[in-house]
Amino acid sequence: MEKRDQLYAGKAKSVYTTDEEDKLILLFRNDTSAFDGKKVAQLERKGMVNNKFNAFIMEKLAAAGIATHFERLLSAEESLVKRLEMIPLECVVRNIAAGSICRRLGVAEGRTLQPPTFEFFLKDDALGDPMINEYHIRSFGWAEPQQVEAMKALTFQINDVLKSLFLAGDMLLVDYKLEFGVYRGELVLGDEFTPDGCRLWDRETREKLDKDRFRQDLGDVVESYELVGRRLGLTFD
Amino acid sequence: MEKRDQLYAGKAKSVYTTDEEDKLILLFRNDTSAFDGKKVAQLERKGMVNNKFNAFIMEKLAAAGIATHFERLLSAEESLVKRLEMIPLECVVRNIAAGSICRRLGVAEGRTLQPPTFEFFLKDDALGDPMINEYHIRSFGWAEPQQVEAMKALTFQINDVLKSLFLAGDMLLVDYKLEFGVYRGELVLGDEFTPDGCRLWDRETREKLDKDRFRQDLGDVVESYELVGRRLGLTFD
Ligand SMILES: Nc1ncnc2c1ncn2[C@@H]1O[C@H](COP(=O)(O)OP(=O)(O)O)[C@@H](O)[C@H]1O
Ligand SMILES: Nc1ncnc2c1ncn2[C@@H]1O[C@H](COP(=O)(O)OP(=O)(O)O)[C@@H](O)[C@H]1O
Ligand SMILES: [Mg+2]
Ligand SMILES: [Mg+2]
Repeated sequence: MEKRDQLYAGKAKSVYTTDEEDKLILLFRNDTSAFDGKKVAQLERKGMVNNKFNAFIMEKLAAAGIATHFERLLSAEESLVKRLEMIPLECVVRNIAAGSICRRLGVAEGRTLQPPTFEFFLKDDALGDPMINEYHIRSFGWAEPQQVEAMKALTFQINDVLKSLFLAGDMLLVDYKLEFGVYRGELVLGDEFTPDGCRLWDRETREKLDKDRFRQDLGDVVESYELVGRRLGLTFD
Repeated sequence: MEKRDQLYAGKAKSVYTTDEEDKLILLFRNDTSAFDGKKVAQLERKGMVNNKFNAFIMEKLAAAGIATHFERLLSAEESLVKRLEMIPLECVVRNIAAGSICRRLGVAEGRTLQPPTFEFFLKDDALGDPMINEYHIRSFGWAEPQQVEAMKALTFQINDVLKSLFLAGDMLLVDYKLEFGVYRGELVLGDEFTPDGCRLWDRETREKLDKDRFRQDLGDVVESYELVGRRLGLTFD
Protein backbone atom coordinates (compact mmCIF):
# COMPACT_ATOMS: atom_id res chain seq x y z
CA MET A 1 0.00 0.00 0.00
CA GLU A 2 1.65 3.21 -1.19
CA LYS A 3 0.83 6.57 0.44
CA ARG A 4 0.50 9.30 -2.21
CA ASP A 5 -0.92 12.85 -1.95
CA GLN A 6 -2.39 14.56 1.06
CA LEU A 7 -6.03 15.11 0.20
CA TYR A 8 -7.08 16.99 3.31
CA ALA A 9 -5.70 17.98 6.70
CA GLY A 10 -8.49 18.21 9.28
CA LYS A 11 -8.37 19.31 12.88
CA ALA A 12 -7.17 15.91 14.17
CA LYS A 13 -6.48 13.67 11.18
CA SER A 14 -4.87 13.90 7.76
CA VAL A 15 -6.18 12.04 4.75
CA TYR A 16 -3.99 10.62 1.97
CA THR A 17 -4.68 8.97 -1.36
CA THR A 18 -3.09 5.59 -2.06
CA ASP A 19 -2.22 3.50 -5.09
CA GLU A 20 -5.75 2.08 -4.88
CA GLU A 21 -8.26 4.60 -6.19
CA ASP A 22 -11.00 3.70 -3.72
CA LYS A 23 -8.83 3.51 -0.58
CA LEU A 24 -7.48 6.27 1.64
CA ILE A 25 -5.04 6.44 4.52
CA LEU A 26 -6.17 8.20 7.69
CA LEU A 27 -3.30 9.56 9.77
CA PHE A 28 -4.34 10.20 13.37
CA ARG A 29 -2.31 13.20 14.59
CA ASN A 30 -1.61 14.39 18.13
CA ASP A 31 -3.43 17.67 17.41
CA THR A 32 -6.45 18.30 19.59
CA SER A 33 -8.94 21.13 19.29
CA ALA A 34 -12.12 22.23 21.02
CA PHE A 35 -14.57 25.13 21.04
CA ASP A 36 -14.59 25.59 17.25
CA GLY A 37 -10.79 25.51 17.13
CA LYS A 38 -10.36 28.24 19.76
CA LYS A 39 -8.53 25.84 22.12
CA VAL A 40 -5.77 23.70 20.59
CA ALA A 41 -2.97 21.49 21.88
CA GLN A 42 -0.59 18.70 20.97
CA LEU A 43 -1.15 15.65 23.14
CA GLU A 44 1.64 13.10 22.99
CA ARG A 45 0.62 9.56 22.03
CA LYS A 46 -2.95 10.64 21.18
CA GLY A 47 -2.62 9.84 17.46
CA MET A 48 -1.46 6.31 18.19
CA VAL A 49 -4.02 5.71 20.94
CA ASN A 50 -6.93 6.98 18.86
CA ASN A 51 -5.85 5.07 15.76
CA LYS A 52 -5.79 1.80 17.67
CA PHE A 53 -8.92 2.62 19.63
CA ASN A 54 -10.80 3.42 16.45
CA ALA A 55 -9.63 0.20 14.77
CA PHE A 56 -10.88 -1.80 17.76
CA ILE A 57 -14.34 -0.16 17.76
CA MET A 58 -14.74 -0.32 13.97
CA GLU A 59 -14.01 -4.05 14.10
CA LYS A 60 -16.57 -4.56 16.88
CA LEU A 61 -19.15 -2.70 14.78
CA ALA A 62 -18.29 -4.72 11.67
CA ALA A 63 -18.69 -7.90 13.73
CA ALA A 64 -22.17 -6.65 14.68
CA GLY A 65 -23.04 -6.34 10.99
CA ILE A 66 -22.52 -2.60 10.51
CA ALA A 67 -20.83 -1.47 7.29
CA THR A 68 -17.77 0.66 8.11
CA HIS A 69 -14.99 2.23 6.04
CA PHE A 70 -12.27 0.56 8.13
CA GLU A 71 -9.98 -1.88 6.31
CA ARG A 72 -6.89 -2.41 8.47
CA LEU A 73 -4.20 -0.81 10.62
CA LEU A 74 -1.14 0.25 8.60
CA SER A 75 1.08 1.64 11.35
CA ALA A 76 0.82 3.02 14.87
CA GLU A 77 -0.89 6.20 13.64
CA GLU A 78 -2.31 5.14 10.27
CA SER A 79 -5.29 3.14 9.05
CA LEU A 80 -6.44 2.12 5.60
CA VAL A 81 -10.08 2.96 4.88
CA LYS A 82 -12.50 2.87 2.00
CA ARG A 83 -12.73 6.20 0.23
CA LEU A 84 -16.21 7.54 0.92
CA GLU A 85 -18.14 10.41 -0.52
CA MET A 86 -18.79 12.00 2.86
CA ILE A 87 -22.23 13.34 3.79
CA PRO A 88 -21.61 16.75 5.45
CA LEU A 89 -23.60 15.87 8.56
CA GLU A 90 -22.80 14.81 12.10
CA CYS A 91 -25.13 12.33 13.78
CA VAL A 92 -25.29 12.69 17.56
CA VAL A 93 -27.02 10.37 20.01
CA ARG A 94 -27.24 11.30 23.69
CA ASN A 95 -28.01 8.76 26.41
CA ILE A 96 -27.23 11.20 29.22
CA ALA A 97 -27.27 15.01 29.07
CA ALA A 98 -23.84 16.66 28.88
CA GLY A 99 -22.17 19.42 26.91
CA SER A 100 -24.07 21.66 24.48
CA ILE A 101 -27.52 20.24 25.17
CA CYS A 102 -27.25 21.37 28.81
CA ARG A 103 -26.58 24.96 27.76
CA ARG A 104 -29.10 24.96 24.91
CA LEU A 105 -32.02 23.40 26.77
CA GLY A 106 -31.22 24.21 30.38
CA VAL A 107 -30.86 20.55 31.34
CA ALA A 108 -28.69 19.42 34.26
CA GLU A 109 -25.59 17.45 33.29
CA GLY A 110 -26.06 13.80 34.10
CA ARG A 111 -29.79 13.59 33.48
CA THR A 112 -30.73 10.36 31.72
CA LEU A 113 -32.42 10.96 28.37
CA GLN A 114 -35.21 8.44 27.94
CA PRO A 115 -35.53 7.74 25.06
CA PRO A 116 -32.06 8.84 23.92
CA THR A 117 -32.05 11.93 21.69
CA PHE A 118 -30.81 12.11 18.12
CA GLU A 119 -29.51 15.33 16.57
CA PHE A 120 -28.19 16.27 13.15
CA PHE A 121 -25.49 18.94 12.93
CA LEU A 122 -24.22 20.49 9.73
CA LYS A 123 -20.48 19.83 9.43
CA ASP A 124 -19.40 23.41 8.70
CA ASP A 125 -16.61 24.95 10.79
CA ALA A 126 -17.31 28.47 9.52
CA LEU A 127 -20.91 28.26 10.78
CA GLY A 128 -19.89 26.55 14.04
CA ASP A 129 -21.55 23.22 13.13
CA PRO A 130 -25.15 24.38 13.65
CA MET A 131 -27.88 21.97 14.69
CA ILE A 132 -30.26 21.33 11.79
CA ASN A 133 -33.27 19.15 11.14
CA GLU A 134 -34.50 16.83 8.41
CA TYR A 135 -36.38 19.61 6.62
CA HIS A 136 -33.15 21.58 6.25
CA ILE A 137 -31.37 18.47 4.94
CA ARG A 138 -34.14 18.04 2.38
CA SER A 139 -34.40 21.68 1.29
CA PHE A 140 -30.64 22.23 1.01
CA GLY A 141 -29.95 18.80 -0.48
CA TRP A 142 -27.38 17.66 2.10
CA ALA A 143 -28.59 14.05 1.94
CA GLU A 144 -31.38 11.98 0.41
CA PRO A 145 -34.43 11.14 2.55
CA GLN A 146 -33.54 7.43 2.56
CA GLN A 147 -29.99 8.26 3.66
CA VAL A 148 -31.43 10.31 6.53
CA GLU A 149 -33.50 7.31 7.64
CA ALA A 150 -30.51 4.98 7.30
CA MET A 151 -28.19 7.31 9.27
CA LYS A 152 -30.67 7.49 12.13
CA ALA A 153 -31.25 3.72 12.16
CA LEU A 154 -27.52 2.93 12.02
CA THR A 155 -26.64 5.48 14.68
CA PHE A 156 -29.18 3.97 17.10
CA GLN A 157 -28.08 0.42 16.18
CA ILE A 158 -24.50 1.43 17.03
CA ASN A 159 -25.79 2.78 20.34
CA ASP A 160 -27.04 -0.68 21.33
CA VAL A 161 -23.72 -2.32 20.40
CA LEU A 162 -21.50 0.27 22.08
CA LYS A 163 -23.53 0.89 25.23
CA SER A 164 -23.12 -2.82 26.08
CA LEU A 165 -19.47 -2.84 25.11
CA PHE A 166 -18.60 0.10 27.37
CA LEU A 167 -20.85 -1.12 30.17
CA ALA A 168 -18.90 -4.39 30.20
CA GLY A 169 -15.85 -2.18 30.94
CA ASP A 170 -17.79 -0.34 33.70
CA MET A 171 -18.29 2.79 31.60
CA LEU A 172 -21.34 4.78 30.54
CA LEU A 173 -21.61 5.86 26.91
CA VAL A 174 -22.98 9.38 27.50
CA ASP A 175 -23.09 10.61 23.89
CA TYR A 176 -21.23 10.30 20.58
CA LYS A 177 -20.89 11.79 17.11
CA LEU A 178 -20.76 9.76 13.90
CA GLU A 179 -20.13 10.67 10.27
CA PHE A 180 -21.32 8.63 7.32
CA GLY A 181 -20.43 8.48 3.65
CA VAL A 182 -21.32 6.59 0.51
CA TYR A 183 -19.21 3.78 -0.97
CA ARG A 184 -20.41 2.18 -4.21
CA GLY A 185 -23.93 3.38 -3.51
CA GLU A 186 -24.00 2.04 0.05
CA LEU A 187 -24.19 4.11 3.24
CA VAL A 188 -21.11 3.33 5.33
CA LEU A 189 -19.83 4.54 8.72
CA GLY A 190 -16.78 6.73 8.18
CA ASP A 191 -14.43 8.97 10.16
CA GLU A 192 -13.67 7.72 13.67
CA PHE A 193 -15.06 6.53 16.96
CA THR A 194 -12.65 7.56 19.71
CA PRO A 195 -12.81 9.40 23.05
CA ASP A 196 -12.30 12.58 20.99
CA GLY A 197 -15.83 12.31 19.61
CA CYS A 198 -17.85 10.78 22.42
CA ARG A 199 -18.35 11.10 26.16
CA LEU A 200 -17.54 8.19 28.46
CA TRP A 201 -17.98 8.23 32.22
CA ASP A 202 -16.91 5.76 34.86
CA ARG A 203 -20.07 3.87 35.75
CA GLU A 204 -19.71 4.34 39.51
CA THR A 205 -17.85 7.61 40.04
CA ARG A 206 -19.05 9.25 36.80
CA GLU A 207 -15.47 10.46 36.30
CA LYS A 208 -15.03 11.83 32.78
CA LEU A 209 -12.73 9.71 30.62
CA ASP A 210 -13.08 11.54 27.30
CA LYS A 211 -12.21 14.79 25.54
CA ASP A 212 -14.03 16.78 28.24
CA ARG A 213 -10.80 16.25 30.23
CA PHE A 214 -9.16 18.48 27.59
CA ARG A 215 -12.06 20.93 27.27
CA GLN A 216 -12.31 21.36 31.05
CA ASP A 217 -8.56 21.22 31.84
CA LEU A 218 -8.95 18.10 33.97
CA GLY A 219 -5.54 16.72 32.98
CA ASP A 220 -4.51 13.14 32.11
CA VAL A 221 -6.29 13.34 28.76
CA VAL A 222 -4.47 10.65 26.79
CA GLU A 223 -3.96 8.60 29.97
CA SER A 224 -7.76 8.46 30.30
CA TYR A 225 -8.19 7.44 26.66
CA GLU A 226 -5.72 4.60 27.30
CA LEU A 227 -7.55 3.62 30.46
CA VAL A 228 -10.78 3.35 28.48
CA GLY A 229 -9.00 1.15 25.95
CA ARG A 230 -7.48 -1.08 28.61
CA ARG A 231 -10.89 -1.54 30.23
CA LEU A 232 -12.08 -2.88 26.87
CA GLY A 233 -9.11 -5.27 26.67
CA LEU A 234 -6.92 -3.15 24.39
CA THR A 235 -3.16 -2.74 24.76
CA PHE A 236 -1.28 0.17 23.24
CA ASP A 237 2.44 -0.72 23.27
CA MET B 1 -68.92 38.38 28.73
CA GLU B 2 -67.26 39.56 31.93
CA LYS B 3 -63.51 40.17 32.12
CA ARG B 4 -62.09 38.88 35.40
CA ASP B 5 -58.46 38.30 36.51
CA GLN B 6 -55.32 38.86 34.52
CA LEU B 7 -53.85 35.40 34.05
CA TYR B 8 -50.68 36.36 32.21
CA ALA B 9 -49.05 39.43 30.67
CA GLY B 10 -46.84 38.42 27.75
CA LYS B 11 -44.57 40.54 25.59
CA ALA B 12 -47.40 41.75 23.32
CA LYS B 13 -50.70 40.49 24.74
CA SER B 14 -52.39 40.12 28.09
CA VAL B 15 -54.65 37.21 28.93
CA TYR B 16 -57.73 37.43 31.19
CA THR B 17 -60.14 34.93 32.62
CA THR B 18 -63.87 35.46 32.03
CA ASP B 19 -67.10 34.34 33.59
CA GLU B 20 -66.92 31.26 31.35
CA GLU B 21 -64.37 28.82 32.67
CA ASP B 22 -63.18 27.66 29.25
CA LYS B 23 -62.96 31.08 27.59
CA LEU B 24 -60.26 33.75 27.84
CA ILE B 25 -59.91 37.32 26.66
CA LEU B 26 -56.78 38.23 24.71
CA LEU B 27 -55.89 41.90 24.91
CA PHE B 28 -53.58 42.98 22.08
CA ARG B 29 -51.31 45.70 23.47
CA ASN B 30 -49.21 48.30 21.64
CA ASP B 31 -46.03 46.82 23.19
CA THR B 32 -43.55 45.46 20.68
CA SER B 33 -40.35 43.58 21.41
CA ALA B 34 -37.57 41.93 19.42
CA PHE B 35 -34.22 40.26 19.95
CA ASP B 36 -35.26 38.35 23.08
CA GLY B 37 -36.77 41.46 24.60
CA LYS B 38 -33.61 43.56 24.14
CA LYS B 39 -35.42 46.02 21.84
CA VAL B 40 -38.83 47.28 22.97
CA ALA B 41 -41.23 50.02 21.92
CA GLN B 42 -44.83 51.18 22.09
CA LEU B 43 -46.38 51.41 18.64
CA GLU B 44 -49.61 53.37 18.48
CA ARG B 45 -52.63 51.53 17.01
CA LYS B 46 -50.71 48.23 16.87
CA GLY B 47 -52.94 46.49 19.41
CA MET B 48 -56.08 47.37 17.49
CA VAL B 49 -54.59 46.55 14.09
CA ASN B 50 -53.24 43.17 15.21
CA ASN B 51 -56.44 42.24 17.03
CA LYS B 52 -58.52 42.84 13.89
CA PHE B 53 -55.90 41.30 11.60
CA ASN B 54 -55.75 38.17 13.75
CA ALA B 55 -59.56 37.87 13.82
CA PHE B 56 -59.64 38.10 10.01
CA ILE B 57 -56.98 35.39 9.54
CA MET B 58 -58.42 33.06 12.19
CA GLU B 59 -61.81 33.27 10.45
CA LYS B 60 -60.22 32.47 7.09
CA LEU B 61 -58.51 29.45 8.66
CA ALA B 62 -61.73 28.30 10.33
CA ALA B 63 -63.49 28.59 6.96
CA ALA B 64 -60.75 26.31 5.53
CA GLY B 65 -61.60 23.70 8.18
CA ILE B 66 -58.81 24.40 10.68
CA ALA B 67 -59.74 24.32 14.37
CA THR B 68 -58.75 27.62 16.03
CA HIS B 69 -59.24 29.12 19.48
CA PHE B 70 -60.85 32.28 18.07
CA GLU B 71 -64.44 32.94 19.10
CA ARG B 72 -65.19 36.61 18.36
CA LEU B 73 -64.01 40.21 18.58
CA LEU B 74 -65.02 41.88 21.84
CA SER B 75 -63.60 45.37 21.30
CA ALA B 76 -60.97 47.16 19.22
CA GLU B 77 -58.12 45.49 21.14
CA GLU B 78 -59.80 42.41 22.64
CA SER B 79 -60.86 39.00 21.39
CA LEU B 80 -62.63 36.12 23.06
CA VAL B 81 -60.85 32.77 22.64
CA LYS B 82 -61.16 29.22 23.87
CA ARG B 83 -58.94 28.56 26.87
CA LEU B 84 -56.25 26.15 25.66
CA GLU B 85 -53.67 24.15 27.50
CA MET B 86 -50.79 25.58 25.49
CA ILE B 87 -48.02 23.32 24.14
CA PRO B 88 -44.73 25.16 24.87
CA LEU B 89 -43.54 24.96 21.28
CA GLU B 90 -43.36 27.32 18.33
CA CYS B 91 -43.96 25.87 14.86
CA VAL B 92 -42.15 27.74 12.10
CA VAL B 93 -42.54 27.23 8.35
CA ARG B 94 -40.26 29.06 5.95
CA ASN B 95 -41.07 29.47 2.25
CA ILE B 96 -38.21 31.91 1.67
CA ALA B 97 -35.03 32.30 3.72
CA ALA B 98 -34.97 35.33 6.04
CA GLY B 99 -33.99 36.10 9.61
CA SER B 100 -32.34 33.55 11.89
CA ILE B 101 -32.02 30.78 9.29
CA CYS B 102 -29.75 33.05 7.20
CA ARG B 103 -27.35 33.56 10.10
CA ARG B 104 -27.53 29.96 11.34
CA LEU B 105 -27.05 28.23 7.98
CA GLY B 106 -25.27 30.89 5.94
CA VAL B 107 -28.13 31.19 3.46
CA ALA B 108 -28.77 34.37 1.48
CA GLU B 109 -31.96 36.24 2.38
CA GLY B 110 -34.57 35.76 -0.29
CA ARG B 111 -33.61 32.25 -1.35
CA THR B 112 -36.66 30.11 -2.04
CA LEU B 113 -36.82 27.05 0.19
CA GLN B 114 -38.08 24.12 -1.85
CA PRO B 115 -39.68 22.26 -0.13
CA PRO B 116 -40.46 24.76 2.64
CA THR B 117 -38.71 24.04 5.95
CA PHE B 118 -40.39 23.29 9.25
CA GLU B 119 -38.75 24.01 12.59
CA PHE B 120 -39.75 23.50 16.21
CA PHE B 121 -38.57 26.02 18.79
CA LEU B 122 -38.96 25.65 22.53
CA LYS B 123 -41.01 28.59 23.86
CA ASP B 124 -38.67 29.60 26.67
CA ASP B 125 -37.59 33.23 26.95
CA ALA B 126 -34.82 32.46 29.46
CA LEU B 127 -33.19 30.05 27.00
CA GLY B 128 -33.77 32.38 24.02
CA ASP B 129 -36.33 30.05 22.36
CA PRO B 130 -33.81 27.42 21.17
CA MET B 131 -34.45 25.32 18.08
CA ILE B 132 -35.23 21.74 19.06
CA ASN B 133 -36.21 18.55 17.28
CA GLU B 134 -38.77 15.79 17.70
CA TYR B 135 -36.42 13.67 19.78
CA HIS B 136 -36.09 16.48 22.32
CA ILE B 137 -39.88 16.88 22.40
CA ARG B 138 -40.18 13.16 23.07
CA SER B 139 -37.42 12.87 25.69
CA PHE B 140 -38.46 15.98 27.61
CA GLY B 141 -42.19 15.31 27.26
CA TRP B 142 -43.12 18.67 25.70
CA ALA B 143 -45.79 17.07 23.49
CA GLU B 144 -47.10 13.65 22.52
CA PRO B 145 -45.86 12.07 19.28
CA GLN B 146 -49.32 12.32 17.68
CA GLN B 147 -49.51 16.00 18.65
CA VAL B 148 -46.15 16.53 16.95
CA GLU B 149 -47.48 14.97 13.77
CA ALA B 150 -50.69 16.99 13.97
CA MET B 151 -48.83 20.27 14.56
CA LYS B 152 -46.66 19.69 11.50
CA ALA B 153 -49.61 18.71 9.30
CA LEU B 154 -51.73 21.68 10.44
CA THR B 155 -48.86 24.14 10.07
CA PHE B 156 -48.29 23.04 6.46
CA GLN B 157 -52.05 23.02 5.74
CA ILE B 158 -52.18 26.61 7.01
CA ASN B 159 -49.29 27.42 4.66
CA ASP B 160 -51.38 26.42 1.66
CA VAL B 161 -54.33 28.51 2.79
CA LEU B 162 -52.33 31.61 3.70
CA LYS B 163 -49.84 31.60 0.81
CA SER B 164 -52.79 31.87 -1.59
CA LEU B 165 -54.54 34.46 0.55
CA PHE B 166 -51.50 36.76 0.66
CA LEU B 167 -50.63 36.14 -2.98
CA ALA B 168 -54.09 37.35 -3.94
CA GLY B 169 -53.05 40.60 -2.20
CA ASP B 170 -49.72 40.66 -4.10
CA MET B 171 -47.70 39.57 -1.07
CA LEU B 172 -45.32 36.70 -0.39
CA LEU B 173 -45.69 34.75 2.84
CA VAL B 174 -41.99 34.37 3.67
CA ASP B 175 -42.29 32.58 7.03
CA TYR B 176 -44.51 32.41 10.11
CA LYS B 177 -44.71 31.11 13.66
CA LEU B 178 -47.70 29.29 15.13
CA GLU B 179 -48.57 28.07 18.63
CA PHE B 180 -50.99 25.27 19.37
CA GLY B 181 -52.84 24.11 22.43
CA VAL B 182 -55.32 21.49 23.52
CA TYR B 183 -59.06 22.13 24.02
CA ARG B 184 -61.22 19.22 25.22
CA GLY B 185 -58.62 16.76 23.94
CA GLU B 186 -58.38 18.37 20.50
CA LEU B 187 -55.31 20.14 19.06
CA VAL B 188 -56.31 23.71 18.24
CA LEU B 189 -54.46 26.70 16.76
CA GLY B 190 -53.94 29.30 19.50
CA ASP B 191 -52.15 32.61 20.04
CA GLU B 192 -52.15 34.90 16.98
CA PHE B 193 -51.39 35.27 13.32
CA THR B 194 -50.33 38.87 12.68
CA PRO B 195 -47.43 40.70 10.99
CA ASP B 196 -45.71 40.49 14.42
CA GLY B 197 -45.16 36.74 13.96
CA CYS B 198 -44.66 36.29 10.26
CA ARG B 199 -42.74 37.83 7.37
CA LEU B 200 -44.63 39.31 4.42
CA TRP B 201 -42.98 40.87 1.39
CA ASP B 202 -44.44 42.80 -1.51
CA ARG B 203 -44.53 40.35 -4.37
CA GLU B 204 -42.82 42.64 -6.89
CA THR B 205 -40.53 44.92 -4.90
CA ARG B 206 -39.95 42.47 -2.00
CA GLU B 207 -40.44 45.39 0.36
CA LYS B 208 -40.81 44.14 3.93
CA LEU B 209 -44.28 44.70 5.39
CA ASP B 210 -43.89 42.93 8.73
CA LYS B 211 -42.13 43.19 12.10
CA ASP B 212 -38.74 43.32 10.36
CA ARG B 213 -39.60 47.01 9.81
CA PHE B 214 -39.33 47.34 13.60
CA ARG B 215 -36.31 45.04 14.00
CA GLN B 216 -34.41 46.83 11.23
CA ASP B 217 -35.59 50.39 11.99
CA LEU B 218 -37.28 50.75 8.59
CA GLY B 219 -40.09 52.93 9.95
CA ASP B 220 -43.82 52.87 9.18
CA VAL B 221 -44.28 49.67 11.17
CA VAL B 222 -47.99 49.82 11.98
CA GLU B 223 -48.69 51.63 8.70
CA SER B 224 -47.28 48.56 6.90
CA TYR B 225 -49.39 46.20 9.00
CA GLU B 226 -52.45 48.23 8.01
CA LEU B 227 -51.40 48.18 4.36
CA VAL B 228 -51.18 44.39 4.50
CA GLY B 229 -54.67 44.28 6.00
CA ARG B 230 -56.11 46.65 3.38
CA ARG B 231 -54.62 44.54 0.59
CA LEU B 232 -56.60 41.63 2.02
CA GLY B 233 -59.78 43.70 2.08
CA LEU B 234 -59.70 44.66 5.75
CA THR B 235 -60.59 48.10 7.14
CA PHE B 236 -59.42 49.30 10.54
CA ASP B 237 -61.52 52.35 11.44
N1 LIG C 1 -13.53 7.09 4.61
C1 LIG C 1 -13.43 8.40 4.36
N2 LIG C 1 -13.40 8.87 3.09
C2 LIG C 1 -13.31 10.20 2.86
N3 LIG C 1 -13.22 11.13 3.83
C3 LIG C 1 -13.25 10.73 5.11
C4 LIG C 1 -13.35 9.35 5.45
N4 LIG C 1 -13.37 9.24 6.80
C5 LIG C 1 -13.29 10.50 7.28
N5 LIG C 1 -13.22 11.40 6.29
C6 LIG C 1 -13.09 12.86 6.43
O1 LIG C 1 -11.73 13.13 6.70
C7 LIG C 1 -11.59 14.17 7.68
C8 LIG C 1 -10.90 13.62 8.90
O2 LIG C 1 -10.11 14.55 9.53
P1 LIG C 1 -10.60 15.39 10.80
O3 LIG C 1 -9.37 15.88 11.48
O4 LIG C 1 -11.61 14.64 11.59
O5 LIG C 1 -11.31 16.59 10.01
P2 LIG C 1 -12.35 17.72 10.45
O6 LIG C 1 -11.56 18.80 11.10
O7 LIG C 1 -12.94 18.14 9.12
O8 LIG C 1 -13.36 17.06 11.34
C9 LIG C 1 -13.01 14.62 8.01
O9 LIG C 1 -13.34 15.77 7.25
C10 LIG C 1 -13.87 13.43 7.59
O10 LIG C 1 -15.18 13.84 7.20
N1 LIG D 1 -56.19 30.28 23.63
C1 LIG D 1 -55.22 30.40 24.52
N2 LIG D 1 -55.31 29.84 25.75
C2 LIG D 1 -54.30 29.98 26.66
N3 LIG D 1 -53.18 30.68 26.43
C3 LIG D 1 -53.03 31.26 25.23
C4 LIG D 1 -54.02 31.14 24.22
N4 LIG D 1 -53.58 31.81 23.12
C5 LIG D 1 -52.37 32.31 23.43
N5 LIG D 1 -52.02 31.98 24.68
C6 LIG D 1 -50.78 32.35 25.39
O1 LIG D 1 -50.94 33.68 25.84
C7 LIG D 1 -49.75 34.44 25.69
C8 LIG D 1 -50.01 35.58 24.74
O2 LIG D 1 -49.25 36.71 25.05
P1 LIG D 1 -47.86 37.05 24.31
O3 LIG D 1 -47.65 38.52 24.51
O4 LIG D 1 -47.83 36.49 22.93
O5 LIG D 1 -46.89 36.19 25.27
P2 LIG D 1 -45.39 35.69 25.10
O6 LIG D 1 -44.51 36.85 25.46
O7 LIG D 1 -45.33 34.56 26.11
O8 LIG D 1 -45.23 35.20 23.68
C9 LIG D 1 -48.71 33.47 25.12
O9 LIG D 1 -47.91 32.97 26.17
C10 LIG D 1 -49.55 32.37 24.49
O10 LIG D 1 -48.89 31.12 24.49
MG1 LIG E 1 -13.34 15.41 12.55
MG1 LIG F 1 -46.18 35.64 21.92
